[in-house]
Amino acid sequence: MDTAEITGENTGPAPRRERGGRHARRELRMQGPQEAGRPYITRAIPPYDILSEENLIRIEDTADRILAEIGIEFRDDPAALNMWKKAGAKVDGVLVKFEPGLLREILKTAPAEFTQHARNPACSVQIGGKNIVFSPAYGSPFVMDLDKGRRYGTIEDFRNFIKLAQSSPWLHHSGGTICEPVDVPVNKRHLDMVYSHIKYSDRAFMGSVTSEDRAEDSIEMARILFGRDFVDKNCVILGNVNVNSPLVWDGTMTLALRAYARANQAAVIVPFILGGAMGPVTNAGAIAQALAETMAGCALTQLERPGAPVIFGNFLSSMSLRSGSPTFGTPEPAIGSLVVGQLARRLNLPLRCSGNFTTSKLPDAHAMNEGTMSMLAAVQCGANFILHSAGFLDGLLSMSYEKFIMDADFCGALHTYLDGVKIDDNQLALEAFREVGPGHHFFGSAHTLANYETAFWDSDIADNEPYEKWEAAGSTDAATRANLRWKKMLNEYEAPPLDEGIDEALRDFMTRRKEAMEDAWY
Amino acid sequence: MDTAEITGENTGPAPRRERGGRHARRELRMQGPQEAGRPYITRAIPPYDILSEENLIRIEDTADRILAEIGIEFRDDPAALNMWKKAGAKVDGVLVKFEPGLLREILKTAPAEFTQHARNPACSVQIGGKNIVFSPAYGSPFVMDLDKGRRYGTIEDFRNFIKLAQSSPWLHHSGGTICEPVDVPVNKRHLDMVYSHIKYSDRAFMGSVTSEDRAEDSIEMARILFGRDFVDKNCVILGNVNVNSPLVWDGTMTLALRAYARANQAAVIVPFILGGAMGPVTNAGAIAQALAETMAGCALTQLERPGAPVIFGNFLSSMSLRSGSPTFGTPEPAIGSLVVGQLARRLNLPLRCSGNFTTSKLPDAHAMNEGTMSMLAAVQCGANFILHSAGFLDGLLSMSYEKFIMDADFCGALHTYLDGVKIDDNQLALEAFREVGPGHHFFGSAHTLANYETAFWDSDIADNEPYEKWEAAGSTDAATRANLRWKKMLNEYEAPPLDEGIDEALRDFMTRRKEAMEDAWY
Repeated sequence: MDTAEITGENTGPAPRRERGGRHARRELRMQGPQEAGRPYITRAIPPYDILSEENLIRIEDTADRILAEIGIEFRDDPAALNMWKKAGAKVDGVLVKFEPGLLREILKTAPAEFTQHARNPACSVQIGGKNIVFSPAYGSPFVMDLDKGRRYGTIEDFRNFIKLAQSSPWLHHSGGTICEPVDVPVNKRHLDMVYSHIKYSDRAFMGSVTSEDRAEDSIEMARILFGRDFVDKNCVILGNVNVNSPLVWDGTMTLALRAYARANQAAVIVPFILGGAMGPVTNAGAIAQALAETMAGCALTQLERPGAPVIFGNFLSSMSLRSGSPTFGTPEPAIGSLVVGQLARRLNLPLRCSGNFTTSKLPDAHAMNEGTMSMLAAVQCGANFILHSAGFLDGLLSMSYEKFIMDADFCGALHTYLDGVKIDDNQLALEAFREVGPGHHFFGSAHTLANYETAFWDSDIADNEPYEKWEAAGSTDAATRANLRWKKMLNEYEAPPLDEGIDEALRDFMTRRKEAMEDAWY
Repeated sequence: MDTAEITGENTGPAPRRERGGRHARRELRMQGPQEAGRPYITRAIPPYDILSEENLIRIEDTADRILAEIGIEFRDDPAALNMWKKAGAKVDGVLVKFEPGLLREILKTAPAEFTQHARNPACSVQIGGKNIVFSPAYGSPFVMDLDKGRRYGTIEDFRNFIKLAQSSPWLHHSGGTICEPVDVPVNKRHLDMVYSHIKYSDRAFMGSVTSEDRAEDSIEMARILFGRDFVDKNCVILGNVNVNSPLVWDGTMTLALRAYARANQAAVIVPFILGGAMGPVTNAGAIAQALAETMAGCALTQLERPGAPVIFGNFLSSMSLRSGSPTFGTPEPAIGSLVVGQLARRLNLPLRCSGNFTTSKLPDAHAMNEGTMSMLAAVQCGANFILHSAGFLDGLLSMSYEKFIMDADFCGALHTYLDGVKIDDNQLALEAFREVGPGHHFFGSAHTLANYETAFWDSDIADNEPYEKWEAAGSTDAATRANLRWKKMLNEYEAPPLDEGIDEALRDFMTRRKEAMEDAWY
């Protein structure tokens, strides 16, 4: 494979990486896995639209009435309230009401598509349009693996997952809080997390949002890496902020999202709706609520800095009405995501969706059944940035080393899936039928020989061998194979080179910031 | 739930069965599971169309050229060759070539939709249009479970799977050769299989196709059950026949498909294409081949008896080009199925697709990752009859008791998925937002109380409990929970009543037929 395939402009469609066959696989191993992938996917198939225009309008009208008649509270951020007042919203205490059309008007300045730059330009990602970026799971306090079971995450786990993501050709982004490094003080860990992303990966990444200061620190580290001017003009860091659903934006979150927007960096605006708890038990209502909450958050970034990149986020889930536990990876959010995708495209905003959701506590059949349905919904709904693409277990409480590997492998399969069915004379293969004729095999045909290297997705986790060979090799299940694989990947990991001066400047900044704070553990 | 929900006409849309909540679940247990389901699904979401009209036409043109320029061999069935000659095809020895348009013209007599009657009228299924019928996996020589591992299937296993299917509210059909009962002579086992479907299930079923005699026997047993006149006028049995891909129809199969058509019963016409072996390695070419082969088989049913019901079958898969093994559940057939769905709808024929495919040897993460992608493709492509909906493992070599349970549970989730997102005032829930307002919970709201019984899919296999509760309950994986469940279901199974006179007549027929044959074991 020519290295030109992974360099060059990132504003156009990603170069197609053909894969498959024994020869292609050998070549892939020689290059190291990351080089073999694409920087992101450009979908060749349309999104899956399930709702009529008429019904989409009914949802939009409901969102408009929620915004106009019930309103959203903006707590602990008086500046945001002033911005809303100036923009023409009705502000009464912390409650803000919006006339229909106001938010859509404000949102017109937001870009439909933008580049998030990586320190390796070949890894920069295009967010929006037909592009899809896979990013690891985000936010688990626990990690688990088959050897040691479940325990709290540490900075070493955090680095391990960055290394695994970096080593996978099927992920495109280094992610953010892949797991909580609970061995580092709460008020300092954002520094170690951002530093680790920069040090151990050359892909794009996310910063902290848990306070305005931490958001600013994250962005400041990006400035050290990319240069102040570059950062002011280009997106180099994302911040994932959550609504305090239903219908409340907390100051912590609006201060963080405004910090990102002020720096021309992209906030990802995400409701957190478990139907029955933070939203109605009916899917259509939860979607209308999500639309209202997300539009408000996205619009606030544009009041802070018109034209700043922003991502419309989707996070729907349901509850077990037997146990009261949240559920993830169920059919309601899967089908709901398809509708959210339609709504986001009508707003002309890039869409974030969640990937491999499950409540399973093990990397088992339950996990991959829910995860696969959830991940397919994410790519089918037209999402551009898919958080939680790999590693998610136990309703986001655990990052699993084995599930990470399985999910990343499935991300690889989705590269093939999203290429769709290509139609040209070679693919239609009429000549091959002439050559082979009725009743004969295609094994050694000229068409097969000419195409087999690029044919068929070839999983690293599936075992397609005959039963007897599989049995002789130890009758392993997928989790066991994934266990072997992540250890091998960590073993073979090589850090991408980082400029020594930048590395030193980042470490200096961390030291100074840490010295200015007392350790806080909660 | 009113019993009226599961009776009534089967020609219209299936009655919607709402499910969920503690109360609804309790009610469900009291009724027995089968009664709680729907006889079939009527989809509320459109199929997922991925290819443009222009590209569909290019595939159709390629199929037409394969048919006209290369042709299809019809071996060991001189009568079929005569029928083709009379219909205007060019017959040269066993090779038949078809002018573009000829098969489409012949296919115009085939119904777009038909009812397959079950002995319990409430279980009759509507095949075609927006309807979806889930049927168990078909054809494995082995069975396996967690207790005893893999072994050859027996008639006891066969009956067990019928009982499990019958007990599941999420399957709609009893299937056919669920597993091969290898303890019964090859030439007699079709009798035991058809009898078992009739005896242990009151749902619709499939008959034998492995010879013309066995097809006739199967249909004769259906006549004993339904009456000769009724069978001549109505579809009561399906026969699944395979092309000997590439481009060969064997006499065994055409004699069987003609026997079904002659009796006004529905043949399911299915290519068997593993790209790289029985078809080209490129997806578009394999799809064009499938279209050519399937159209020819479907058209032959119409020559035999114009107006006979027939189902357009889809079976694409790929190969591991490393090991030469077939692969199942990979992204190429998943995306290819979406295109086959578009092509079948352009022919106005009901579509059969394959469900839960995988090469995994265990009911593990690998199995459900591939199975879920494959099954979602089947429902998204608009398939009307989904064979292999439950139990499939190891590339169809094994029926797994545990995977059967997991798959049937996923079929349940797909009922919810295919209901889509309903839009009405209650679902949009504006009043609930007024009631709850910003920052409060929906738990006890009037809207939640009015809707929670019908909200949210509630899996029997997923464990959504908090980690500590799950751990205290034994830290089970999904396969272990499925293992407990199939034993409980077999234990609680009750046979649906069967008229004593019919039962006796069926047993008499079997005895007579068996006495007329020597045992054959291969």
